[in-house]
Amino acid sequence: MRDSKRVTLKDIAKVTGYSSNTVSKALRDAADLSTATKDVIRQTAGNMGYVANAMASGLRSGHSNVIALIISDISNPFFGILTKEVEAQAMQYGSTVIVLNTEEDEKREEQALKAAISRNVDGVLLVPAWHGRQNIRMLQNAKKPCVLVGRHLDDVAIDSVCFTDERGGYDAVSYLLSRDYRNVLMINVPYNSSASERERGYRKALTEYSLPSNVITVSSALGGVRDELSRVIQSGAKFDAVFAFSDLIAFEAVCVLAEYGIKVPEDVGIVGFDDIQSRFQIPFPLNTVTVPKRELGVRIVDLLMRRISGDTEGFPQRVILETKLTVRGSAK
Amino acid sequence: MRDSKRVTLKDIAKVTGYSSNTVSKALRDAADLSTATKDVIRQTAGNMGYVANAMASGLRSGHSNVIALIISDISNPFFGILTKEVEAQAMQYGSTVIVLNTEEDEKREEQALKAAISRNVDGVLLVPAWHGRQNIRMLQNAKKPCVLVGRHLDDVAIDSVCFTDERGGYDAVSYLLSRDYRNVLMINVPYNSSASERERGYRKALTEYSLPSNVITVSSALGGVRDELSRVIQSGAKFDAVFAFSDLIAFEAVCVLAEYGIKVPEDVGIVGFDDIQSRFQIPFPLNTVTVPKRELGVRIVDLLMRRISGDTEGFPQRVILETKLTVRGSAK
Repeated sequence: MRDSKRVTLKDIAKVTGYSSNTVSKALRDAADLSTATKDVIRQTAGNMGYVANAMASGLRSGHSNVIALIISDISNPFFGILTKEVEAQAMQYGSTVIVLNTEEDEKREEQALKAAISRNVDGVLLVPAWHGRQNIRMLQNAKKPCVLVGRHLDDVAIDSVCFTDERGGYDAVSYLLSRDYRNVLMINVPYNSSASERERGYRKALTEYSLPSNVITVSSALGGVRDELSRVIQSGAKFDAVFAFSDLIAFEAVCVLAEYGIKVPEDVGIVGFDDIQSRFQIPFPLNTVTVPKRELGVRIVDLLMRRISGDTEGFPQRVILETKLTVRGSAK
Repeated sequence: MRDSKRVTLKDIAKVTGYSSNTVSKALRDAADLSTATKDVIRQTAGNMGYVANAMASGLRSGHSNVIALIISDISNPFFGILTKEVEAQAMQYGSTVIVLNTEEDEKREEQALKAAISRNVDGVLLVPAWHGRQNIRMLQNAKKPCVLVGRHLDDVAIDSVCFTDERGGYDAVSYLLSRDYRNVLMINVPYNSSASERERGYRKALTEYSLPSNVITVSSALGGVRDELSRVIQSGAKFDAVFAFSDLIAFEAVCVLAEYGIKVPEDVGIVGFDDIQSRFQIPFPLNTVTVPKRELGVRIVDLLMRRISGDTEGFPQRVILETKLTVRGSAK
């Protein structure tokens, strides 16, 4: 435990009696060595716990084979699912993923980006926490390819892969209206492109029925729903349905409503966004807007890898993935 | 985008007119340079997007300041929460975390460990997927400090931080028995120390009431509950309560029971394990055995960092953290 040195080519050379150069060749499977020699060296290397030093190779080739995934909060199941998809796809390219959380905070996003750059990652997948441009500029100055995930920034030349957020919001609310709900409260999060587009879809659906909108904004930190929603309930404002920015917010809203004796779907209908139940079952049949999480993971990694390899075709690209409404039972 | 070179000391030297050596000193905040000079150099470096290359520094110091967290599945919210705690604590030591998934498979565990070693991580936090010893031996041969997380291996000298799993199982089932449930089905996962200890607690509680046990084992992959539990229900075997290895398994069990018209808690009581609802609310009041997730994250990182620094005191250490029953409403 005290001697934390790794096994080197030299160590293997000493044990096998071959030169370091021969050991190196054997481990690289060079053609000019006999299979027998290679077998001896490789088996010894394996027994000694030798594993090629990807970090050192990375320094030599200029690639670290590490990418950063910078998200709001890994403990949110949506991001847990996304992380798994990203890791699986990155593995196809021989890359490892480091995950960093921003908590939707500009300052923490800056720290995360600095950490990623100082780790010499090959590129960054970023759920932008902030509409400010400084952090993106830092990344571009450091010449790190970056793909925005699930949100876009309009006045910056940068690749992004997003969802049909406006249509998702429109579909969710149109469904509620088709079920005769008339006072739809939207529980949204502070400004980002997906929040504002989902809200636009919400308003568009209401306008078609000439109905008024009512939006509250809650902290996107977990547990942020209680205060704001309680205030609405206590104010006596009427609502018979809720459209929530995410499934987690919808779940928390249902818990808060229950504390006031308000039942779903009997008293209030609800629709969420993300569909975390596509991955694991929760005994609450939440209607939701399903986003293609696997496809998102694949597309962002593929696009980032193209940029890392120097392929600039179509830059900046905005890929938009389709959402679809999933009806389970949280509306009448 | 095409020119993916990072800004070097030389680049900054060229722009500022100082020597690379002076630039290096300024960025290290050396005492023998004027504040004015340092300010000019640092500001220029910042504008140029220079960030210290932690990877190169790591190679020099022999530490990469990266640790690996090897878990079953990042999309399981329990591991999402744990990952967040580990990242927060690792940051206190200036370390980044790479997360690798094993899917509870020995072969994938081997791949994950090899990936971690080849990345030259300073140490490994491992939820062991397998009771085999080969993978641990590889890690020890590579001289990588390792702390086992939530599970222990008895005939290997290795640090671990676990829970009072037997007591957790005992508390869960004793509670069900105290509420007059008499046929408690346990839904467990394939062998690991926490599974067998939770089961031991389950059996101990039943023995005190002279009641028979009934344990089914389900794949620990998400979605593994349906087939096995359906078989039990269709066989007509009587059970009026369920003790599940984890909250996710409990939630899925409730969904399967509902499909057969079996209501919780009216027809069947249920208790899970982990308490993922300590972090976010789900509108289903699951009784569970709460494990201290933050404390787990802090303790495993602290212990690993001690080992990485060469402190072998008390090795091998087995830390055991206390569980406690949380009653919500999934039993009468």
